[in-house]
Amino acid sequence: MELQEYLKNVAQEIDLMIIRYFGHPYGPLQEASAHLLSAGGKRLRPAVCLLAADAVKKGSSFDVAPAALALELIHTFTLIHDDIMDRDAERRGVPTVHTLWDEPTAILAGDVLYARAFEFLCRTPAPDSARVRAVSLLADTCNDICEGQHLDMSFELRDDVTEVEYLDVVRMKTGALYAASAAIGAIMAGAKPMHADALFQFGMSAGIAFQIQDDLIDLMVPSSVSGKDRASDIRQGKQTLVSIKAREAGVDLAPYRKALTDAEVDALIARLEAAGVLAEVREIAGNILDHGRSTLALLPGSDERRLLFELGEFFVTRGS
Amino acid sequence: MELQEYLKNVAQEIDLMIIRYFGHPYGPLQEASAHLLSAGGKRLRPAVCLLAADAVKKGSSFDVAPAALALELIHTFTLIHDDIMDRDAERRGVPTVHTLWDEPTAILAGDVLYARAFEFLCRTPAPDSARVRAVSLLADTCNDICEGQHLDMSFELRDDVTEVEYLDVVRMKTGALYAASAAIGAIMAGAKPMHADALFQFGMSAGIAFQIQDDLIDLMVPSSVSGKDRASDIRQGKQTLVSIKAREAGVDLAPYRKALTDAEVDALIARLEAAGVLAEVREIAGNILDHGRSTLALLPGSDERRLLFELGEFFVTRGS
Repeated sequence: MELQEYLKNVAQEIDLMIIRYFGHPYGPLQEASAHLLSAGGKRLRPAVCLLAADAVKKGSSFDVAPAALALELIHTFTLIHDDIMDRDAERRGVPTVHTLWDEPTAILAGDVLYARAFEFLCRTPAPDSARVRAVSLLADTCNDICEGQHLDMSFELRDDVTEVEYLDVVRMKTGALYAASAAIGAIMAGAKPMHADALFQFGMSAGIAFQIQDDLIDLMVPSSVSGKDRASDIRQGKQTLVSIKAREAGVDLAPYRKALTDAEVDALIARLEAAGVLAEVREIAGNILDHGRSTLALLPGSDERRLLFELGEFFVTRGS
Repeated sequence: MELQEYLKNVAQEIDLMIIRYFGHPYGPLQEASAHLLSAGGKRLRPAVCLLAADAVKKGSSFDVAPAALALELIHTFTLIHDDIMDRDAERRGVPTVHTLWDEPTAILAGDVLYARAFEFLCRTPAPDSARVRAVSLLADTCNDICEGQHLDMSFELRDDVTEVEYLDVVRMKTGALYAASAAIGAIMAGAKPMHADALFQFGMSAGIAFQIQDDLIDLMVPSSVSGKDRASDIRQGKQTLVSIKAREAGVDLAPYRKALTDAEVDALIARLEAAGVLAEVREIAGNILDHGRSTLALLPGSDERRLLFELGEFFVTRGS
């Protein structure tokens, strides 16, 4: 199967589970919890989870589906709480939960999805020992995500964030949940520790590379294509690998902390290309991804291992 | 052992665990998570958990301690998030987390304790099947607590809340976590389903009675004794069993929605006593407690069963 077809199928499957379990909310809080979850999304973490399960044991992804949903629930819970903290009004083309309801409801709506994620892990047909390992790993991951978000917010007050600090935040904010997605799929499918560890490492690297590419997309893709506010990171003075490498190369981004036309952004991109900044950022993402993909060689060959490999490639090429 | 001595010992034990696991925060977010946790508290939910474990199997409370801590972590997480929603500046004699740090940090500090509660359940030395049941029950409980808090907030806009609606909120906001505390202690100690169910029912009833007594304490205990703002529920027009029964008895509380002197509160208490309101509230709490305590008879006799029975009594007599 082709990767894009596989991803489309997984997204449909997860969407159907969301309709089944969250499509008939029995009150305003459950409605608020379901709102962002039902607004679409690429469902990439569930895809990683299901691919990892089948890469370990062909056919196990059917049973592992509730765990895959759990990972999407955790992702959505963090988005709802992040949107409150960042005061964002829109996400996935719909108003954010705290905008449509209010802040207390949004805090609780996130807390509800948090709880239900653990519920779905416990519902996954797998040996109890696997479920306990999965719960424990997911709890650790949530702790990491919170740490990452808190550190990331502390960066807003600084303009001297280093590459190491940036990568540490990305590891916690984005890498950890992809790592958990792959490892939980593997664990629930009965993986040997060596295989679960390899998939954890793959998910971590792919997730970090994914986030670096996200920063590039913010800069590179015209608003007309992405539907997003272009170069918002630069305008807000956000610390990303692009801004860190620009600083190292002596490109001052301070004059760009304002509303920018597409022509101005294009000129900035040309400057960053000329200074070697974008090539360096792409190289770092590529190296991190390659490190993760090399661990996939520890797994037996399968269609799903190939698809994971391709998914990594997709993570660092999408939007370009 | 006497109940008060037992409670004091448990509080010390939990305080020591908190110092061990949360006393050396490695960053500002962990510090914010530890803040309210380290500010003291009666540790009643851990006490219920440990008593339930020993009532099922003498000596098992030693192993069940991490689960008892998990229940205190969940309780504290809900307090941190509730304080944000209610805009409360002080709790347990210290500034609330969002006051001392900021709101985003407080949201994340709660989320961290939430995660760590599940981590401690997974660390509890018990069969994996027991841990999975405990995780599943705690997840359901968190969902209930969120529902209860959301419903409770919706009551602020109403003055026609019924006794049934009030008890439903109290069941979710307070009863559910006491029920889970008792049941998780029992499950981790290897209880038969019948005994775990009995302890769940006891915890639920005791928790509901506890909350009703809390409402009475707010009204009855002079500020000089409680250290709290007296009759704050009445002043804020909060829907409690006292206000519901006052309405049913034709006592209009609207004139009391203002700052009240101790003399004015005493006069109101006399009116409510004369109208039979307080007696009715006490009777309802007593009946609910008795129902829960009767299920304890399903357990074999033990010191711990007696202490649970006495703890229920303490719940409805404290502060009077």
